Amino acid sequence: MKIVSAIKRVPESIRIHLSRRFDGVDFVFCHGMHEAQHYLAEADVFITYGEDLDEEKIQVAKKLKWIMVLSAGMDRMPFDEIKKRGILVTNVRGIHAKPMAEYAISMLLQVSRKAKTLMKQEQKREWSRRAEMNEISERTMVLLGTGAIAQETARLAGAFGMTTIGLSKSGRPKEHFDQVYPISDIHLVLPKADFVVAVLPSTEETRGMLTYAHFAAMPDHAVFLNMGRGDLVPADVIMDAVTTDEIAHAVLDVFEEEPLPEAHPFWGEENVTVTPHISGISPHYVPRGFAIFEENLEVFLNGDGELRNIIDPERGY
Amino acid sequence: MKIVSAIKRVPESIRIHLSRRFDGVDFVFCHGMHEAQHYLAEADVFITYGEDLDEEKIQVAKKLKWIMVLSAGMDRMPFDEIKKRGILVTNVRGIHAKPMAEYAISMLLQVSRKAKTLMKQEQKREWSRRAEMNEISERTMVLLGTGAIAQETARLAGAFGMTTIGLSKSGRPKEHFDQVYPISDIHLVLPKADFVVAVLPSTEETRGMLTYAHFAAMPDHAVFLNMGRGDLVPADVIMDAVTTDEIAHAVLDVFEEEPLPEAHPFWGEENVTVTPHISGISPHYVPRGFAIFEENLEVFLNGDGELRNIIDPERGY
Repeated sequence: MKIVSAIKRVPESIRIHLSRRFDGVDFVFCHGMHEAQHYLAEADVFITYGEDLDEEKIQVAKKLKWIMVLSAGMDRMPFDEIKKRGILVTNVRGIHAKPMAEYAISMLLQVSRKAKTLMKQEQKREWSRRAEMNEISERTMVLLGTGAIAQETARLAGAFGMTTIGLSKSGRPKEHFDQVYPISDIHLVLPKADFVVAVLPSTEETRGMLTYAHFAAMPDHAVFLNMGRGDLVPADVIMDAVTTDEIAHAVLDVFEEEPLPEAHPFWGEENVTVTPHISGISPHYVPRGFAIFEENLEVFLNGDGELRNIIDPERGY
Repeated sequence: MKIVSAIKRVPESIRIHLSRRFDGVDFVFCHGMHEAQHYLAEADVFITYGEDLDEEKIQVAKKLKWIMVLSAGMDRMPFDEIKKRGILVTNVRGIHAKPMAEYAISMLLQVSRKAKTLMKQEQKREWSRRAEMNEISERTMVLLGTGAIAQETARLAGAFGMTTIGLSKSGRPKEHFDQVYPISDIHLVLPKADFVVAVLPSTEETRGMLTYAHFAAMPDHAVFLNMGRGDLVPADVIMDAVTTDEIAHAVLDVFEEEPLPEAHPFWGEENVTVTPHISGISPHYVPRGFAIFEENLEVFLNGDGELRNIIDPERGY
């Protein structure tokens, strides 16, 4: 059995560990697809970020039985060819949960505890205790989305004693949420929110989903945080909501256009915090991805147990 | 029974609630000691921040049976006179736990997630994803102190999957700590720390307790955070430790001299973050203080249950 990886810079400790644990397996760790494509014809298993695979490469990989995608987005996968060949596809769904939940808590703490004001004071060597400190403890967080990232965010929010309300298509109860409602109830839920955290993917239903009326329904002191997709709400709606004081602050990690253009008004608005799509970045990404792969490889080789994160090629997720 | 409060700006909701709940009690809410002293002679119970009481006032308050101090520090209380009269003293020990634990987590997230760099980029309208993001999840936090504030900090750290190690005089196990060691083992523990959080009071034993050798024992990537007392470690020791890369960063909310003088090198050092002794500030302070008072008043009136936070006038805490 040959396993070919196109993932760059896999730490040596991981490579050695896998080779030792799976004795009979021939691992080929390549530095990207350019190198990996030479081994595709012999590969039984292929590990990839998924953006470098096309129909032609799948056809070359005649022995391929399993593609492990070290990513959560699957937009560029050649699913027609994969379906035809019956190739198993798994991914690392949920791998962004920890860093993104940390991002959300970190940014809500920053806004509540006036981090920008304190940093400006520090730059000016100014000792002032006037900035009004707030707590995030015991407040109410409304999450748009109830998937793995939203759940981890809700779990941490719960540790701070927050009430957590999720909104999802089905409204089905999910772990770590105090309450979950169907998205159709959004107008009933938003008035309760101290914090609104959006973690929705970009779909036909979510594009442009939030309007000015939604922000008007939030309390004036609410903080809106978007770490899902930028097309959830037009930029001018957020600007209007902030400048007319319908909400107190917006924290944005995702935008309709990325990078956010230098002239964009978000940069200059005091009550908007811009971060450059960094919520999911983590030094633990590759180790966590390979940990999921390792679990799955054990199942794949022994047929014992259940494979994690199997992708349905029909639906693409 | 007459209860006199010298606490300024007690919210009306609290005043109404207490007057309704304790029907037979005559509450007098004053705007500070200047007004309250006129009612002292008739007071059975006195609510105060504790800095405005002296022997003379205790003597005037002939009927006084209980002093409720809405503070955790008791340095200025006239304990000799209090002891002589057998007056009960209680305080609000632990009231700072929530805001201070939030402060610690917030600042460690800021340092780990490069908040200063991101804010500078934002000021310059610069979209850059180069700043190295780290997580606080699953790291090791060593806490100097295992009291209420340290415990709440350890509880939150635990929610982030951190290993929490406490250091205390006795080394006795405490809730929310994975391990507790006696302070004499500090040199064995510090090498394990990703984060060192100091929450120690100022006593003969803690003054100047930390030396350069302690910082040298920490890993180079360690972040040191002091929200206890500034005299735990001389400023030049911290500056040396940071500038010689014995640790990566120091977050300081307390100082030997406060306000921190404008010329102090801490202000200009990139790897030192200065905050103006704000870790304990919370908008919930007075409500939480009166909630403790209310519980105690119930016990005080009915003799049923246990009073919280009784102060031993002999020891002063």
